[in-house]
Amino acid sequence: MFSGGASTLAQKVKLSTIADALGVSTATVSLALRDSPLVAGSTRERIKEHAREIGYIYNRRAASLRTSRSGIVGVVVHDIMNPFYAEILRSIEHELDRSRQTFLLSNHYDKLDKQRTFIDTLLQLGADGVIMSPAIDTPAADIRMAEENGLPAVLIARDVEGAHVPVFRGDDAYGTALATNHLISLGHKRIAMVGGNDQTSTGRDRYQGYLNAMQAAGLEVQPTWRIAGPRTKQGGFEAANQLLALKDKPTAACCWNDLVAIGLMNGISRAGLTPGVDISVTGYDDLEEAAIATPALTTVWNGQREVGRRAASALLDKLNGQTVGQTQELIRPELHVRQSTGRPVER
Amino acid sequence: MFSGGASTLAQKVKLSTIADALGVSTATVSLALRDSPLVAGSTRERIKEHAREIGYIYNRRAASLRTSRSGIVGVVVHDIMNPFYAEILRSIEHELDRSRQTFLLSNHYDKLDKQRTFIDTLLQLGADGVIMSPAIDTPAADIRMAEENGLPAVLIARDVEGAHVPVFRGDDAYGTALATNHLISLGHKRIAMVGGNDQTSTGRDRYQGYLNAMQAAGLEVQPTWRIAGPRTKQGGFEAANQLLALKDKPTAACCWNDLVAIGLMNGISRAGLTPGVDISVTGYDDLEEAAIATPALTTVWNGQREVGRRAASALLDKLNGQTVGQTQELIRPELHVRQSTGRPVER
Repeated sequence: MFSGGASTLAQKVKLSTIADALGVSTATVSLALRDSPLVAGSTRERIKEHAREIGYIYNRRAASLRTSRSGIVGVVVHDIMNPFYAEILRSIEHELDRSRQTFLLSNHYDKLDKQRTFIDTLLQLGADGVIMSPAIDTPAADIRMAEENGLPAVLIARDVEGAHVPVFRGDDAYGTALATNHLISLGHKRIAMVGGNDQTSTGRDRYQGYLNAMQAAGLEVQPTWRIAGPRTKQGGFEAANQLLALKDKPTAACCWNDLVAIGLMNGISRAGLTPGVDISVTGYDDLEEAAIATPALTTVWNGQREVGRRAASALLDKLNGQTVGQTQELIRPELHVRQSTGRPVER
Repeated sequence: MFSGGASTLAQKVKLSTIADALGVSTATVSLALRDSPLVAGSTRERIKEHAREIGYIYNRRAASLRTSRSGIVGVVVHDIMNPFYAEILRSIEHELDRSRQTFLLSNHYDKLDKQRTFIDTLLQLGADGVIMSPAIDTPAADIRMAEENGLPAVLIARDVEGAHVPVFRGDDAYGTALATNHLISLGHKRIAMVGGNDQTSTGRDRYQGYLNAMQAAGLEVQPTWRIAGPRTKQGGFEAANQLLALKDKPTAACCWNDLVAIGLMNGISRAGLTPGVDISVTGYDDLEEAAIATPALTTVWNGQREVGRRAASALLDKLNGQTVGQTQELIRPELHVRQSTGRPVER
């Protein structure tokens, strides 16, 4: 360990004072004071000089009266390699960078024990806070206990009932209703919903939005039209055969996300049909990739950058001692119409 | 901080002893001993009983004679959201999970200061080691200094001259030569190389492999056929117009990676041509997505899972006190032929 023993707290407080004054990380200050060549020579000199000026060596007791901050924020999501989270993470990272917070990431793959190990690690490290897209079935107690142990939490993308912490996510029911209504307005009557499941609040809300739109239009929904499955390209690709084999074959598919939609379009192509002509397909998220897919994907913009920005700034507000209530901020999605949807072709 | 002050080291050592005995993380032990509800009741009781049995409270001095390990390994790469790194990371994570190491991730986006801040943070946290795909222009001194400060390093995907630490990566020159030779064997004579640049060892090696194959076949290489650019789908998509506008239009493109290849195929489709028929395209990496692309992508398997597995196990060997030399392990790539390559069509 770099700075062990009785002086840890005092040093840390002082390091953050110097870091704040000079606009560098506490880690950099710590290394510079130890003459580490990991810090550029000029920065090192500037830090050492400032430390001498404010009496770093001789005034530890006064420093220990101030509050300690580690400068570390943890972020844990289902899978950081999913481009949907990737886009949220980029905007969280951008926001935290501006406050010189270091950002540590982990996946929970919807496994509670992995999520708990990460939170335990953050507690051990004395991290300042955590931003999480909670694993399926996360009990509110897990989040409350993190908070009670000094680790404030902010949720993204998914809600946990009873957690009483800020939540930032898109209005999922409204979003799938937008996509479904677009397909209905083109003349589609048999519309499938492909991908995902109802184990998360997101999943339940997206399915509900689709059902609401179908019912409002007086359209029948057959149970076989709900093709649940992984939220991945591979999942969408494999759903294509199932969709194309249905007796009353749907003429359109409202997909759980862009990954499923792009995989489904590839599967439709592989079967010799043309997505956007033979079968209309909508996505969800408007990933960067949606606009360059073949055909370009009609999808629902899900505000992931906004979600990330607002979540990070709510956490920073909490860290700075501001009162942040139990916000439930729903970002309003928008429909982006491209080439993957058209009028139904009856054959 | 959870356990501050003079007893930090002693507690940590003892925690790891209990963790080892019971097969749980040190973080879990720490929380259990503090009666945190984050740990399941039965686990908590088991830990507290074991702690009492081995005299956790009364025997700190003996414990402090043992070695301290934090159980944390840092991993830093250019961009964890790139599926190539994602596949490496999954196998690192799998390997570290088996040794109950917690895995903290960060991006450096090829910015040295971001990479340094992360290494500084790991040093401050007392992390056990770091696995890194070094940022462009990383000086060997950065890696040596991390090691000298007690943070052993293992490199993946990219080498740093003079760093004298183990490196695990694919044989890039051999891989692009495989792809280029496959195109030559189909009858292509005008072959472009699309995406990436020569700022990394990977980039230089991949371009060299392509040049070697062209020269060995006695084929001319025009400078305009090297279309450098981002290693992303967007980059490949945008390169399509540049490729199709060339005077002596190539009939095939050897792409830097699968992302560039998939983007290029989308761009070729958008221009009204058929990838795999009008222009043959090869990728590199054999991402999961390659097999379900339209058309299915001919590509070079790059052994990313092997790279991750070997890198993690070399680091674990180091942590366990085994001598690990300056290995340079080149994984031998394999060509996977699919539908995106065919005989040239001269029009």
